Amino acid sequence: MRNVNRQWRLARRPSGNAVPQDFEYVEANYTMAPPGDGEIVVNNRAFLCAPTIRNWMDPPGNCLYPSINLGEVIMGPASGVVVASGHPSFCRGDRVATISTWQDYSTIRPEESMTRVLPDGHDFIEAVGVFGLNSLTGYFGIREIGAIQPGDQVLVSGAAGSAGSVAAQVARLGGCRVVGIAGGTEKCRWLRQDCGLDAVIDYKSEDVRARISELFPDGINVFFDNVGGDILQAAVDNMAEFGRIVLCGQIASYNDEIAPEGPRNMMRLIYGGIRMQGFLVGHFADQFDAALRHLTEWERSGQLAHREDVRSGFASIPSIFNSLFDGSNAGTLIVDIDD
Amino acid sequence: MRNVNRQWRLARRPSGNAVPQDFEYVEANYTMAPPGDGEIVVNNRAFLCAPTIRNWMDPPGNCLYPSINLGEVIMGPASGVVVASGHPSFCRGDRVATISTWQDYSTIRPEESMTRVLPDGHDFIEAVGVFGLNSLTGYFGIREIGAIQPGDQVLVSGAAGSAGSVAAQVARLGGCRVVGIAGGTEKCRWLRQDCGLDAVIDYKSEDVRARISELFPDGINVFFDNVGGDILQAAVDNMAEFGRIVLCGQIASYNDEIAPEGPRNMMRLIYGGIRMQGFLVGHFADQFDAALRHLTEWERSGQLAHREDVRSGFASIPSIFNSLFDGSNAGTLIVDIDD
Repeated sequence: MRNVNRQWRLARRPSGNAVPQDFEYVEANYTMAPPGDGEIVVNNRAFLCAPTIRNWMDPPGNCLYPSINLGEVIMGPASGVVVASGHPSFCRGDRVATISTWQDYSTIRPEESMTRVLPDGHDFIEAVGVFGLNSLTGYFGIREIGAIQPGDQVLVSGAAGSAGSVAAQVARLGGCRVVGIAGGTEKCRWLRQDCGLDAVIDYKSEDVRARISELFPDGINVFFDNVGGDILQAAVDNMAEFGRIVLCGQIASYNDEIAPEGPRNMMRLIYGGIRMQGFLVGHFADQFDAALRHLTEWERSGQLAHREDVRSGFASIPSIFNSLFDGSNAGTLIVDIDD
Repeated sequence: MRNVNRQWRLARRPSGNAVPQDFEYVEANYTMAPPGDGEIVVNNRAFLCAPTIRNWMDPPGNCLYPSINLGEVIMGPASGVVVASGHPSFCRGDRVATISTWQDYSTIRPEESMTRVLPDGHDFIEAVGVFGLNSLTGYFGIREIGAIQPGDQVLVSGAAGSAGSVAAQVARLGGCRVVGIAGGTEKCRWLRQDCGLDAVIDYKSEDVRARISELFPDGINVFFDNVGGDILQAAVDNMAEFGRIVLCGQIASYNDEIAPEGPRNMMRLIYGGIRMQGFLVGHFADQFDAALRHLTEWERSGQLAHREDVRSGFASIPSIFNSLFDGSNAGTLIVDIDD
C-alpha cells in the first residue's frame, strides 16, 4: 500500500469548460483510519470520466444534481479494491465499482454510492468501461425509458459515445432500425461497420435536420438524446405518434452558464401523445446484476462493440476529463491510475 | 326537420385570435341525402367550444393536428340526434356526442369521430359539458398520464377551465393535495369553495413562481398543464423527483404565429427522472364508458362541481368561441342551437 494519498480537489467553480485553475492537486502522507460503521475504504484503480461530473462542479442550483463543495475532492465513478471494510457486505480485497472520489483512497458509504462487487472476469478498466455506468445508462435508458419494441425506428444522438453506442446496439439487438448521430468520418464508420447501425448522420458535415426527415419518413419512435439543443429540437419535430424521447444528457449545454432553451413545439408532444422523460442510471441500481449479465454475454460473444480510450496518470485527470467536451476522445474515456 | 342547413365555414386562416372575417356564414336549402355505408347524419343541438379548434384552423404544419381546409365547415365537438344512419351501431333517433361540424346537419363517420350514444339521463348540454370531451380530457389526463397516487402534491393550471377543474377534482377525489392556478377572485373562490381545492394561485394578482415554491416546499409530483409558457417553466423548476408533467394544452400560445419556447432546464428532467407527456382524449376512446360512469356518479352525488356557460344562437358561434381566449367564459363554453 502506498503511504501517500494524492487528490484532485475543486478549487474554483468552472465558468464554461473546466480549466486547470479550477482544480487543486494535493498530496499528503496517508495513514488509513479504520472506516466507520457501514463504510468502506477503496483504493481507486481506474476513473470513468463521465460528463455529469462537470454538472456536479456547478454551485447548488435547481437541477436536482449534487454540487461538490469548494475544497472537496471531485466525485466520480471508479473501480478499485476494498482495503478496509466496516460494512457487512464488503470484505478487504473485494474488487468493486462505485461512485468514488478523485484520490488514491476514498472512504465510501456503499448504500449511497451504487457500490457493487465486480463479477469474476471483469477487470478494473472494463468495470468502468464496457460494463460501467455509461454502458448501463445506455442499456436502461433505451429499454426502460425508451421502451423499445421490435420494429421501432430509433434515433440516437452522441451515438459514438459510451452511453449512446450501447443504447444504439441494445436497440439493434432488440430488433429496431437504428440511426446514430456522431461527429466525424471515423466515428460514423465505426458505428456503421462495428456497431451495425442502419444509418449514421455526421453532424460535422451534414444537415442534421434534413437528414433526420429523410431517414425517418414515418417519424421517430424512440429518440435517445445525449446532446440537447438543436438536435433535440429537430427530433421533436420528427417524432411519430406515441414516440418516446429519452433524456439521457444535454452535453451541448453542460458548460453553459444559463439553462438553454428546451425544445419548442410542446403542441407536437400533445397531439402526438409523445413522452419525454429523463432518468439517471442510479434509478435502476436494483437491476444492475441482470443488465450486466446481458451486457457481458453480448460483449463476450462479439455482438456488442465497445471502445475504451484509456489514458494513464493520476496527475492528468483534469486535462483528460476535458477531452470529453471537445469530442477528442475515442470511446469511453478512462483514467488508469494503476501506476 | 328544418329544411335549411346553416353553416360556419373557414374563410381565411386566422392570424392570432380568430376574427369575424375568418369565418363565412352560409345558409342553404337542405334536402337530406341518404348517408353512405358506415356514415350517419346528425342534427347538431349543442356545440362545445374547445380551444383545440383554434389549432385546427392553422395551415397544415408539423404539430400532428388536423388542419381544416379553407372553405370547409369548421369541425368541433357536438351533441345531437341521428336523423339517418348507414351504420349498424346507430339508429335514427339516437342521441349522440361526436366530433361534428358547425352546421345543422353533419354527415359523420363514427369510427373517426369518437361518436357515442348518450346514456339515459344525460341531456344535450351535459353531453358536451360536464360529461363532454373537456371533462374526459381532465379525467384521463390526471389519472392515466399523471398517474396520480394518494398523497401526491398536484398543481393544475387553467384550473377553472373545464378540463382543469375536472382534473383538479379527480385528483382531490383520489386523495391528492391539489393547488389550482386561475385568473381572478371569482374563479379562485369557486375552486376553493365549490371544487374543494386545497389552495389557489390567482395569476392576475399573484407572483405565480413565488407562490408555487411557497406552496410546494417538497416539490410537485404531478403538474397538469393547460397553459404552457412561463407557468410550465415555473412548474418544471419546482418538480419533485419522479414527477409527471401532463401536457394537456398550451392555451398561452394557440394564437401565436410561431411555436413558443418550451421549458428550459431539461437537466432537471434528467436528474429528477421527470416525465413530460402529451395526450389527446381520443387516445382513451375505448375507456370512455367507464370514465363516464365515474363522472356521472360523482356529479350526481354532488362531489364534482361543474359550471357550464351556455349561450344561444347559431349565428354567434364564432364570437362565442372567441370568449375562450380572453378568459371571459365562466365554465365550459357551450353554444345551444336548439332554437
